[in-house]
Amino acid sequence: MKRRPRPITIEQHAWQRGIEYRAEANLESLRRIFTIPESNGATLAKIDADISSNLDGFLHEHIVAVEKDLAEIERAFSSPDIPDDPFYVSAYTDFILKHLVAQSVRTSAPGFVGHMTSALPYFMLPLSKIVTALNQNLVKVETSKAFTPLERQVLGMVHKLIYGGDGDFYAETLHDPRRALGAFCSGGTVANITALWVARNEYLGAEAVARKGLGGALAERGLKGLVVLGSKRSHYSLSKAADLLGLGRDQMVQVETDERYRVIPEKLLARALELRDAGYGILAVVGLAGATETGSVDPLDELADVAAELGCHYHVDAAWGGATLFSRTHGPRLKGIERADSVTIDAHKQFYVPMGVGMVLFRDPQRVAAIEHHAEYIIRKGSKDLGSHTLEGSRPGMALLVHAGLHIIGRKGYELLIDLGVERARNFARAIEAHPDFELIVEPELNILGYRYVPAELQRRLRAASPEERQAINRDLDRVTKLLQKAQRAAGQSFVSRTRVEAYQHGGDVITIFRVVLANPLTTDQTLLDMLDEQLAIAARHAEIQAILARLLPSRAACAAGV
Amino acid sequence: MKRRPRPITIEQHAWQRGIEYRAEANLESLRRIFTIPESNGATLAKIDADISSNLDGFLHEHIVAVEKDLAEIERAFSSPDIPDDPFYVSAYTDFILKHLVAQSVRTSAPGFVGHMTSALPYFMLPLSKIVTALNQNLVKVETSKAFTPLERQVLGMVHKLIYGGDGDFYAETLHDPRRALGAFCSGGTVANITALWVARNEYLGAEAVARKGLGGALAERGLKGLVVLGSKRSHYSLSKAADLLGLGRDQMVQVETDERYRVIPEKLLARALELRDAGYGILAVVGLAGATETGSVDPLDELADVAAELGCHYHVDAAWGGATLFSRTHGPRLKGIERADSVTIDAHKQFYVPMGVGMVLFRDPQRVAAIEHHAEYIIRKGSKDLGSHTLEGSRPGMALLVHAGLHIIGRKGYELLIDLGVERARNFARAIEAHPDFELIVEPELNILGYRYVPAELQRRLRAASPEERQAINRDLDRVTKLLQKAQRAAGQSFVSRTRVEAYQHGGDVITIFRVVLANPLTTDQTLLDMLDEQLAIAARHAEIQAILARLLPSRAACAAGV
Repeated sequence: MKRRPRPITIEQHAWQRGIEYRAEANLESLRRIFTIPESNGATLAKIDADISSNLDGFLHEHIVAVEKDLAEIERAFSSPDIPDDPFYVSAYTDFILKHLVAQSVRTSAPGFVGHMTSALPYFMLPLSKIVTALNQNLVKVETSKAFTPLERQVLGMVHKLIYGGDGDFYAETLHDPRRALGAFCSGGTVANITALWVARNEYLGAEAVARKGLGGALAERGLKGLVVLGSKRSHYSLSKAADLLGLGRDQMVQVETDERYRVIPEKLLARALELRDAGYGILAVVGLAGATETGSVDPLDELADVAAELGCHYHVDAAWGGATLFSRTHGPRLKGIERADSVTIDAHKQFYVPMGVGMVLFRDPQRVAAIEHHAEYIIRKGSKDLGSHTLEGSRPGMALLVHAGLHIIGRKGYELLIDLGVERARNFARAIEAHPDFELIVEPELNILGYRYVPAELQRRLRAASPEERQAINRDLDRVTKLLQKAQRAAGQSFVSRTRVEAYQHGGDVITIFRVVLANPLTTDQTLLDMLDEQLAIAARHAEIQAILARLLPSRAACAAGV
Repeated sequence: MKRRPRPITIEQHAWQRGIEYRAEANLESLRRIFTIPESNGATLAKIDADISSNLDGFLHEHIVAVEKDLAEIERAFSSPDIPDDPFYVSAYTDFILKHLVAQSVRTSAPGFVGHMTSALPYFMLPLSKIVTALNQNLVKVETSKAFTPLERQVLGMVHKLIYGGDGDFYAETLHDPRRALGAFCSGGTVANITALWVARNEYLGAEAVARKGLGGALAERGLKGLVVLGSKRSHYSLSKAADLLGLGRDQMVQVETDERYRVIPEKLLARALELRDAGYGILAVVGLAGATETGSVDPLDELADVAAELGCHYHVDAAWGGATLFSRTHGPRLKGIERADSVTIDAHKQFYVPMGVGMVLFRDPQRVAAIEHHAEYIIRKGSKDLGSHTLEGSRPGMALLVHAGLHIIGRKGYELLIDLGVERARNFARAIEAHPDFELIVEPELNILGYRYVPAELQRRLRAASPEERQAINRDLDRVTKLLQKAQRAAGQSFVSRTRVEAYQHGGDVITIFRVVLANPLTTDQTLLDMLDEQLAIAARHAEIQAILARLLPSRAACAAGV
C-alpha cells in the first residue's frame, strides 16, 4: 500500500510560525466579522492594499516559481474535518499565503502562453470588489435593480457588435421584458448548452418536450434522434451539451477539417443529408470562430449557407474568437457570424474579464421563449427578471466588468489587443520556422499556434522516412514533446500547453504539439524567443529526452557522448 | 407609441460634472492598465480603500434608499454602442457610482429580509480579491495548481458534514483522480441539474445515452419516459433540469404537501407506482431541506425509504437548508439526508459566501463517472483536472471562500448563525401572532416564515365567511399584500418578498403572502417589530389599499373618513 504523506494543518503552521490562531465562537465576535474589520485581520488588510497598489509585485513576491509536486501540495489540503473552533483571520491568511497563493499558477506572467487565461487590466480588481461588496443577485430585479438594465445593455452592445442591428431595433428590445438579446452565464460551456437547448425546444416545440419528454417528442415526429454537426476541432463542451440535452454524445457529429483545421462545408452538408436520410432530425450546424486548440476559424459564411439549405439552427462558438470583431483588420475573417442564430462569446477570455463570465447572444430576441420558466416568488410572468431565461439561477453582477472593459478599454483598445496578439503569433511562427530545431505545425490564423521541438537532423530523417518509419518517429517525438512540456512547466519560467492534432506536414499523423495562445499584451517577441532557448536548454539536460533522441539519431549520440 | 425616455450617457455625465473623460487608445496606455494603476484611477483606488476599511459606511453613503422607477434607471444603460475611444477610469467610476451603485439593492441591510442574499463577513472581500487577482481556472491543474487540492478538500469537508464517512474513506478518496466526492458549480441550479444528469445516465447507461440519445435508450428499455418525484414546493430549477435533460418539464412530478408544507411520502410513493405501471421509469425522488418559499424540510428519512423501495436515485435539495447541519440543535431535523445519493448545497446562501458558489455532493465518489468527459489539451484521462466531471468548463477559485468560511467562522460559528436565525424567526412568528392586524400563514420550521397584513376586524370576517366569501376576500387581500410589498420596497427602509402558497388556515386557498428569510446576524427582533410598524404606516397612507379595505369593511370606512 502507498504511504500517505503526512498532512500539514493550520494549527501546526501557526504554531511553528509563532502566530496565535485559536479564536472563540461567540455572538459578539460573529457580529463583528459582519461589520468592521478587527485588528487580527491586519494581515489580510495588508494583502488587500498590496494587491491594489502593485498586483504584479504581489504575485512576484508570493508565488514561487519552481513547481512543487502535487502530492506535496495536497498535504496542506488533506483534512476532511471542519474545525469546531474558528481560526484567527491572521493565522488563516498566513497559511493560505504559504500553501495556496505560493503554489498557484502565474496566469498573468508574459511567459504563461499555454492557456487562455491572461493578465487582467488593473481596474478589474477594484470593480470586482464592488461586485462582491454589493452582492447583487441578477436572477431578479428585486435583488439587483440597476444591475439588471446594465446587464441588458451589455448584451445589447455585444449583440450589436455581432449583428449590427439599427438604433430602433435596440431601442425597442434592449429593455423589453418579453424579449432577450441573450443571456449572461458562468462561461462558454453554459452558453453553448443554452444555445442548443433553445434550438432543441424550438425544433420539437417547447410544449411537446414539456409534455412528453425528448423521447415522446421524437417519436411523434418519427425521428430516430437529433444531430448537431460541427468541426472535429469543436470544443468538448458541445459533446457535453449533446449528452446533457439527451441528444447523445455521438449525435454531436464531428466533421473533417481542411489543412488549416477549418471544417469542410461540403463534407458537413453531405454528412447531414446522410443522417437526414437515416431518420435523424438536423438540429444545428455549429461553426467555430477560434478553435481552442488550433485557433482556426471555420468558413462561417459558407456554413450559414449550409444551415440555410438544411433549414436548421446555426450556432457559432466564438468563445475565444468573438473579440476579433473589435479589430477592423481581423474582424472580417469572421464574416458570416452575423448570419448565426446564436453566438457564444466568453468575456473571461479576450474581453480580459476575470474568470466566470460568458454570454450567449440570439439574433432574434424572441427565441429565448423556448426555454422560459417562471416561479411564484420571482421571475413572475411579465417581470424584467433576467432569471426567466437563463440556465443558471442566482448569478453575480459580473456584467459590470464587461461594461467597464467596453468603456475603459473601448473598441479601439480591444482592437489594439487583438492586433497585437495576431502580430505576436505571426512573428513567433516565423521565428519557429527560421529555427533549425523547431517545427511549426499549426500556422496561426489568429493568435494561437502549434509547434514542436525536432532537432534539424531528425527533421531531415522525417522527410525522407517511409510512412511506417515516420509514424514510429512521431510516436517517439510525442514522448519528447510531453516530457519537455512537463519539464518546462516544472521549471516555472514559462509555460506552453500541449495537445494532439493532425499534422498535415506528416501525412495527417496525429501528433503531440506545444500549443501557444498569445493574448497577453505584456508578452513580447523576445519573451517567446527566450522561451525557445529555454526549451533547447531543458532538452539538452533532460536525460530521458536525450536518450530518446540518441536512439533516433545514432550519429548525434556519439557526438553528445563527446560533449 | 410610447415615448422612449432620453438616454443618459457617460459623456454627458462627465461633462456636467466637469470631469475629463476621453482617453486615447494606444499601446503604451494599454500596457499600463495591465500593470500599475495610473493616477486617473484614483477615484477607483479610493473606493477600493473605502470598501476595505468600512464596507457598511460605503454602502450607506452611496446607495440611495428610495426606489427609483426602473424605466428611469434604464436611461443610464440604454446605448447599444461600444464606444470607439476609451473613457478615463475616473470618469467611468464616477458614472457607475451615481447610476449603478446608488441604484443597487442593499442586500446586507438588517431590514432586507425578503430574499436569500445576506450580509457577508468582511474577510470575504479581500479573499475574493485574491481569487480575482490570481485568476486561476479550476477546470485543470495546469491553471489552478494548489486550488485543485483545496477545492477537493472543501468537497471532502462538506461531504463529511453530510455523510460522516471515516478517516480512511477520505484519506483514500479526497485526492484520488478516479473519484470525486462532488463538484463545485456556480449555484444550486447547476448542482441540481448535475445530480439528475448523473442519475439519468446511470439509469439508462452512459454508453447507451451516448450512442442512441435519450429517445433511443428509452425505447430500448421499453419506457415511455423518466420521471422525477418531489414536493409541490420544489425549487423551479428542478423542472428546469427536467426540461434541459430531455425528461420533459411535466415529468418533474410535484406531489402534495401536508399543512407544514412537507411532501407526503405515502402520496409520493403511490404516485410513483402509478407512473411505473403507466410505463415510466422512476428516475429519482427529491427531498427538500429548506424549501425556498416556506423553509419547510421534507421527511427526509421516510423519503429515503420510499426511494429504496422504488430502487431509484435519492437526491436532496439542501441548497438553503444544508448549513443547518452545523447546528447540534437543528441539524437533526435533516435526519435522513445522509441516505441521499446526492445533495445540493449553496455556499452563497447560509455559508455566507458571495454570489456564485454552489456544490453537489455524491455519497459514492464513483458516481460521477456517468458524466465523465475528456479532451486532448486538458482533462486527459487519469489527470486530476476537476473539469472532467463538472457541467461547467472554466471556473474561478471560489472554493477558497468556502474554505475560509469553514476555518474562520468554524462549525461553532455557523451553528450560532443558524441558531440565531431560527430563534429570530420564532420570535417574529410570535410577534405576528400577537399582533391584531397581522396573520401568520407559514409557521417557521427553520428561519423562513410567511405572513400577511389583515386588519383584526377583517380577520374576524374571514373566519365567519362562507368558502365563496372567503375566497373573494382573499383575492382582495392578495391585492393588498402585493401593493404593500411594492410600496415597502419602494420606500427602501426594509424589504420582504412575496409569494403564493396554500393557506391551510383558509381551507387551502392559494394566497399571496410576505415571505421573510432570517439569515442576517445583524437583524434583530427590533428590526422586525419596526418593520411591522412600517407596514402599518404604509398601509394607512396608501390610498389604493385603503380603498380595498374600505370596500371590505364598510364600518371601518366610516371611521377612517372621520380621521
